[in-house]
Amino acid sequence: MVTTSLRILYADTDQMGVVYHGNYLRFFEQGRAEFLRDAGEPYAEAERVYGMRLPVVEALVTYKAPAHYDEIVSIHTRLVAIGRASLRFAYEVTRGETVLALGHTAHACVDMQGKVQKLPTSFAQRLSSCFEA
Amino acid sequence: MVTTSLRILYADTDQMGVVYHGNYLRFFEQGRAEFLRDAGEPYAEAERVYGMRLPVVEALVTYKAPAHYDEIVSIHTRLVAIGRASLRFAYEVTRGETVLALGHTAHACVDMQGKVQKLPTSFAQRLSSCFEA
Amino acid sequence: MVTTSLRILYADTDQMGVVYHGNYLRFFEQGRAEFLRDAGEPYAEAERVYGMRLPVVEALVTYKAPAHYDEIVSIHTRLVAIGRASLRFAYEVTRGETVLALGHTAHACVDMQGKVQKLPTSFAQRLSSCFEA
Amino acid sequence: MVTTSLRILYADTDQMGVVYHGNYLRFFEQGRAEFLRDAGEPYAEAERVYGMRLPVVEALVTYKAPAHYDEIVSIHTRLVAIGRASLRFAYEVTRGETVLALGHTAHACVDMQGKVQKLPTSFAQRLSSCFEA
Repeated sequence: MVTTSLRILYADTDQMGVVYHGNYLRFFEQGRAEFLRDAGEPYAEAERVYGMRLPVVEALVTYKAPAHYDEIVSIHTRLVAIGRASLRFAYEVTRGETVLALGHTAHACVDMQGKVQKLPTSFAQRLSSCFEA
Repeated sequence: MVTTSLRILYADTDQMGVVYHGNYLRFFEQGRAEFLRDAGEPYAEAERVYGMRLPVVEALVTYKAPAHYDEIVSIHTRLVAIGRASLRFAYEVTRGETVLALGHTAHACVDMQGKVQKLPTSFAQRLSSCFEA
Repeated sequence: MVTTSLRILYADTDQMGVVYHGNYLRFFEQGRAEFLRDAGEPYAEAERVYGMRLPVVEALVTYKAPAHYDEIVSIHTRLVAIGRASLRFAYEVTRGETVLALGHTAHACVDMQGKVQKLPTSFAQRLSSCFEA
Repeated sequence: MVTTSLRILYADTDQMGVVYHGNYLRFFEQGRAEFLRDAGEPYAEAERVYGMRLPVVEALVTYKAPAHYDEIVSIHTRLVAIGRASLRFAYEVTRGETVLALGHTAHACVDMQGKVQKLPTSFAQRLSSCFEA
């Protein structure tokens, strides 16, 4: 599991006085980026080196408690599945001991033209060592 | 089913040259707002008249095909469940005959302090007449 | 002058209960896109046909009155300057008779590699006919 | 001057492969929040303690060079004017030695109902000590 954090801006809030629900997919993106960096395969490099992309094919968020302006929230990211041409990450967003949201994203591996391709071997191997069921 | 549409802006795209996946929750919001307006219960009114809010407690998006800059996409929204203090909407985002994304959002009914409350009777009745299993 | 409109979403608001100030640049973008379409030079086409882009090099917004959830706002766009390799648009965002914001954006004309280039002749001619001092 | 930094997400980019110009107002917001925190007057506290808000009444951004995915950019914020009921901040966004954008925001001081009010004395005094012409 890799943990990163961020501070909530006014830009993230809505008139309910809490973080707009759509912004959690952005938080998940930040978590995933730090997970891949930590695994030695930063996504920006992966695009350049392997000519691959990992578009989101499914995203689920379950909201447990609201986040508010200026709070620091943590995003805990795990890799929960690796397929031939797919990945799945699970996320937990917390503020201290409080769980704010849970979710996952599923990704296809595609080439720069958007055609599905096998995960590059060295990329898959490196990520496999970070896998958590 | 209620259909609304929008045109994709540069602001919606990302460097993959397609609409950023997180923005579909915004599209769903637009679909839901037009559904409620069409049902005679615009959300802005519902907040004012009933003192209630409908925060998203779960959101799922499945991405089928990318949307691109300047395309007009349609959002088709259905109400698929009404509970004592909850609602569920299903969405289909299309461009012409092509399905771009599917998904749903589940909502709790809460008062202005965030406490769960029963859906107001007249609101629930009006929405029941728009219900599609 | 070309006028387009949009309805404010929850996603656009912040915890002050009004539209987040940063979102007006998105509204300006919508206004500009409709201006160019109306002039017979839709931006998506201009990128494809002329291999040019029009990045924003300066943006100014003056905020006069807040916009709120579910309101319909109009964006009035004028082309106020055409240079050899530059354009300037002016915007007024209104709700009914009320002016909400004023502003402008200045744009460079660049090729797909980001190098400044002269505005394509036919593009410049068509836009000149829509010019308002 | 107070400096803070952030890493560019996919969510921040557009199909030009660079950060969408509208997002710089969000970067400025982050810079301003850290400036106020550093001055001993975090904005979240100011809202609570003084019952005041500082809505943006004018924002200017000049774009010098693009920012890209995964880059770390710094936001340097200075307080450049304090009036009876107004503040002005200036910003510089940089990547290493490269200046990406410059700008300012002007703010009114209003009460929770949006009525202009004098800056609270202790708030103004604390900020005066951080003032740079």
